[in-house]
Amino acid sequence: MIIKLKQDINASQHQSLASLINNLGYKPTYVNTQFGKYLVSIGKKEIDLRKIGFEAGVEDIFRVDDAYKLVSSQWKIGKTVIDLGDDVKLGGNDFQIMVGPCSIEGEEQIASTIAHMKLNGVKIMRGGVFKPRSSPYSFRGHGIDTLKIWSEMAKKEGIKIITEVMQVSQIEEMMPYVDIFQVGARNSQNFNLLDELGKVDKPVMLKRGISGTIEELLQSAEYIFSNGNEKILLCERGIRSYETAYRNTMDINAIAILKDKSHLPVIADPSHGIGVRRYVDKIALASVAAGADGVIMEVHECPEKAVSDGQQTLDYGESAKLIAQLSEIRKIVS
Amino acid sequence: MIIKLKQDINASQHQSLASLINNLGYKPTYVNTQFGKYLVSIGKKEIDLRKIGFEAGVEDIFRVDDAYKLVSSQWKIGKTVIDLGDDVKLGGNDFQIMVGPCSIEGEEQIASTIAHMKLNGVKIMRGGVFKPRSSPYSFRGHGIDTLKIWSEMAKKEGIKIITEVMQVSQIEEMMPYVDIFQVGARNSQNFNLLDELGKVDKPVMLKRGISGTIEELLQSAEYIFSNGNEKILLCERGIRSYETAYRNTMDINAIAILKDKSHLPVIADPSHGIGVRRYVDKIALASVAAGADGVIMEVHECPEKAVSDGQQTLDYGESAKLIAQLSEIRKIVS
Amino acid sequence: MIIKLKQDINASQHQSLASLINNLGYKPTYVNTQFGKYLVSIGKKEIDLRKIGFEAGVEDIFRVDDAYKLVSSQWKIGKTVIDLGDDVKLGGNDFQIMVGPCSIEGEEQIASTIAHMKLNGVKIMRGGVFKPRSSPYSFRGHGIDTLKIWSEMAKKEGIKIITEVMQVSQIEEMMPYVDIFQVGARNSQNFNLLDELGKVDKPVMLKRGISGTIEELLQSAEYIFSNGNEKILLCERGIRSYETAYRNTMDINAIAILKDKSHLPVIADPSHGIGVRRYVDKIALASVAAGADGVIMEVHECPEKAVSDGQQTLDYGESAKLIAQLSEIRKIVS
Amino acid sequence: MIIKLKQDINASQHQSLASLINNLGYKPTYVNTQFGKYLVSIGKKEIDLRKIGFEAGVEDIFRVDDAYKLVSSQWKIGKTVIDLGDDVKLGGNDFQIMVGPCSIEGEEQIASTIAHMKLNGVKIMRGGVFKPRSSPYSFRGHGIDTLKIWSEMAKKEGIKIITEVMQVSQIEEMMPYVDIFQVGARNSQNFNLLDELGKVDKPVMLKRGISGTIEELLQSAEYIFSNGNEKILLCERGIRSYETAYRNTMDINAIAILKDKSHLPVIADPSHGIGVRRYVDKIALASVAAGADGVIMEVHECPEKAVSDGQQTLDYGESAKLIAQLSEIRKIVS
Repeated sequence: MIIKLKQDINASQHQSLASLINNLGYKPTYVNTQFGKYLVSIGKKEIDLRKIGFEAGVEDIFRVDDAYKLVSSQWKIGKTVIDLGDDVKLGGNDFQIMVGPCSIEGEEQIASTIAHMKLNGVKIMRGGVFKPRSSPYSFRGHGIDTLKIWSEMAKKEGIKIITEVMQVSQIEEMMPYVDIFQVGARNSQNFNLLDELGKVDKPVMLKRGISGTIEELLQSAEYIFSNGNEKILLCERGIRSYETAYRNTMDINAIAILKDKSHLPVIADPSHGIGVRRYVDKIALASVAAGADGVIMEVHECPEKAVSDGQQTLDYGESAKLIAQLSEIRKIVS
Repeated sequence: MIIKLKQDINASQHQSLASLINNLGYKPTYVNTQFGKYLVSIGKKEIDLRKIGFEAGVEDIFRVDDAYKLVSSQWKIGKTVIDLGDDVKLGGNDFQIMVGPCSIEGEEQIASTIAHMKLNGVKIMRGGVFKPRSSPYSFRGHGIDTLKIWSEMAKKEGIKIITEVMQVSQIEEMMPYVDIFQVGARNSQNFNLLDELGKVDKPVMLKRGISGTIEELLQSAEYIFSNGNEKILLCERGIRSYETAYRNTMDINAIAILKDKSHLPVIADPSHGIGVRRYVDKIALASVAAGADGVIMEVHECPEKAVSDGQQTLDYGESAKLIAQLSEIRKIVS
Repeated sequence: MIIKLKQDINASQHQSLASLINNLGYKPTYVNTQFGKYLVSIGKKEIDLRKIGFEAGVEDIFRVDDAYKLVSSQWKIGKTVIDLGDDVKLGGNDFQIMVGPCSIEGEEQIASTIAHMKLNGVKIMRGGVFKPRSSPYSFRGHGIDTLKIWSEMAKKEGIKIITEVMQVSQIEEMMPYVDIFQVGARNSQNFNLLDELGKVDKPVMLKRGISGTIEELLQSAEYIFSNGNEKILLCERGIRSYETAYRNTMDINAIAILKDKSHLPVIADPSHGIGVRRYVDKIALASVAAGADGVIMEVHECPEKAVSDGQQTLDYGESAKLIAQLSEIRKIVS
Repeated sequence: MIIKLKQDINASQHQSLASLINNLGYKPTYVNTQFGKYLVSIGKKEIDLRKIGFEAGVEDIFRVDDAYKLVSSQWKIGKTVIDLGDDVKLGGNDFQIMVGPCSIEGEEQIASTIAHMKLNGVKIMRGGVFKPRSSPYSFRGHGIDTLKIWSEMAKKEGIKIITEVMQVSQIEEMMPYVDIFQVGARNSQNFNLLDELGKVDKPVMLKRGISGTIEELLQSAEYIFSNGNEKILLCERGIRSYETAYRNTMDINAIAILKDKSHLPVIADPSHGIGVRRYVDKIALASVAAGADGVIMEVHECPEKAVSDGQQTLDYGESAKLIAQLSEIRKIVS
């Protein structure tokens, strides 16, 4: 059950509401976000919602059967639209493409990528400066200084930045330079990191775990929302299966289901999904046909020379062609 | 290595070619289909193809590295187009939709379905008369007599029929009444059945195994082709994964890969794929965006009353709307 | 619901019982095996079992909630023991090891294997003469003539034979020469083959499908039992997962569950399970610790020279050592 | 390549060794643990190891082909034995059982568990005070104060404690009270946490990820070792598969492989593995038969009343019986 509170609810109203909930045998969690105030109440007894609806300080009340609550479409019918400023919006009617290299390699690469983006009307640039790697001996990214340079160059051109945050201690230092924090698949249930990202007023794109269920992804998003941050994007990036003909099994089914179960925007990552350059376009197109609100893809001036993930990275020509096709598909299904 | 033979190759040419192959340390298999004659030769040694190319009786010769040979796109660049007669073609530039109930229930249902098809320009009707069931106590379909009635009604209206064959002994009795034999997921590696279907001149749609790999599907298709039947359709119908939010993980990735690796047409089965009525449309659209040559989907006048699979079956309204959208997507990607 | 009938039930008693069942809204299936007569009745209504228990011709009656019925331990508390003759029994207190090559290669190999078996007290020999292969161009076994020779040599030494049957047409010709028919993983839901194996009085070892569920395995066994053959062995041989460090994920969990859910003996196949020679012993030991009634394993005089599966085959020394350890483990857990 | 350095290597020797490595085109990482000094060198060129072996400051040198290095058995033939003090050792010839509740609930429960342990000769107690939960609204454990009480009670009785650490900020506060830090499945690739646990001199038990590969587990262990901590235990706790008859697919295969590929001790967690109380004993026995150096299992005075995981928890009677059987199996296989 989600109780939407009035913005001007006062302390005594709050108190009396909380005791009412407790007396009904429900456990209340108070949530205060950049957009609203909520009382999430978890319990099993059948109760008469109207009883609560008429209480002072209550704006509205919703029954939510899902295991996740605030991110569920059961209470919020309208779609969440995330505003990155400068008229760059994502979700609902606003479709966005995000392109860029796996790793940010230097100024020349940034400039070249931005030029490609401007030519093709893309407004959000992806790229890693902190890279999670299975082996401790692998390249872990160029770090915060490179992010600062990137941010400066992007801001000049009105380009927004999405990049991965790997640990709590990085949040504050990255904060001024990123427009969207990305949480990687391996951190999809790093609840500590999710808690902290829920306390900042900055969009977070949360990737599905390597073998995460759809419900686990939504519950991880609930961690962020219930800590105070409503600006969440969900990202499907492929799951593990027995098939070895590709890198991951991009789960297009999940896109359709996430769009239905949640009001949050859903982004497709075909580069990590199928993970094979020559098929990335097909999977990107399929994702948008299935309802994705955006596509994030690895693009590099020369994929053969990329320091990482070159095998799943498009060159500028491939990228430009795909961007045009994606828009056409989008028109049909939206 | 595939050696395409001349149609008029004579016995002595054939003999001398076979001994040449054997002497090179390769194992030759002679294949005679409705369209051509081939000598598939398996071996590992590096050999000079031209040596064989100049032999009498040889039309052309191709190196094929794939584990599967005759179904590979490495030797046959053009796409296989399957002609069902009455100008109904499938593959290459020819896109087809197949609709119908899970089980054929009776004349009234057949008539109603055909009417829906005619209204929406659909030319191939699906439906089961022999049903594979996990439990021996479940309904196993209405059998051959129902197929005969169905066939009569369909022929009158120029409608083609696809239905499942489950065992060798059914092939002959079904032969006059079907336009495409369907091999179900559980029989995807029933090599005995595949061998026999390779000996008839009738199209076969082969479904991927419940947890079959893409390579296994192609090797199963190779069984049919190497027994003499080139008219093969491949069908992606979802695989098993850990996710329980849907019935199967429809593997759109496989569609993109099969289209690239093989010259055979690829059909998507979103009904069994995601297996949830309200999402079937999204997955059908995604499949076509990824390159599918056709879509097979369960449609029933009243899904709630279907004797089987109602939960993944569309009604006529949903079907009509989806058929229109599929054509639009197809135009963009073809 | 399973109704155990009296052996001397007469036609009119049978008739009146069937109508009673039908009137209760249940669907009866009459099953007549080499050991008993049963009426399996499927339905959902709550009914008073005593009503039926007092009917003429009824020996006993059992409620079975499982999807499978006759193979369930819910009605048959005692364990099924399969008697192969010459005092070779399997199930309950009788533990058996089965060894032999992947493919039967010739007389010398047979003689050598039998000698190894006699030295180590093993009474059942495995080996393939019909081999299912993913590719139509692979070696498919030496066939029926080799089986005849093998059978003659084995009978002289009191050795029992288990070998794979791949299609209905082979059952009759193999019948005189085998002691246990093996159904391979790819045929685990070849219902046609299961139906026919249910009609012969010969033990059948049914392997779990490549990605078959435990419930599907039991339902496939139900096909055999409900056609008249109670002599069934279940075999765990590994399932498909994302892990690539071994051939299959030998699912020891399934052994524990099958032993609990069914009265049928459970055999472990560690050779196909983990599929790596140096680990076969560990997995064999673990299987017996988890409760397996038997182990089937690939053993060859010289695994490096085996025509197939050499990488997962033990030599005689490894086999002898393992057989001794298996007996010790068995003593602790039985 | 791993270069074992002499303990008294001096700065200039170190310097000249590093430049030699660099000049050979290898990337050196200097590792200083509680037991030794190493130079891990990553590169692809074939080089003559003796060249380096004769350098000043070098004790020994090993070629390691595995992706993981210091945790590989390719360089360290002997098994790692972890000494918890008071003669409680783990690894090599030392087998240990760890029991206790899912969550530490209070003093009475702790006292009761310790009494059960003393009766059965168990020396390590498990229990959670910080619980990772999929939902932000679930019970997250009783926290640090409960750990302090638990630690005091355990120390009095010579009992060692293993408990889960979820985030970097908890390491320091937990340090005085735990004997083994446990890293849960969801944090198996939380590289930040692994880095920090590599900097303390306290054993760490690292669980395999929910769908982690065997190689990923070893690479995660490499994070800990390469940061300076050699005291690592690996834990198999079940993976995700399509099977729903149990909680997770306990992967006994992984135990056999980890024991072979690494010198680190391997612990089995059958409670989370199969996750069904009535089968936990079978899976524990199988794990030890496959070579596990220890078993961690959930035990509670009254599983029906446990605040979490009751469905997979043994009572004292079941635990006592199993502990006795585990020792018998261990004797046979060690």
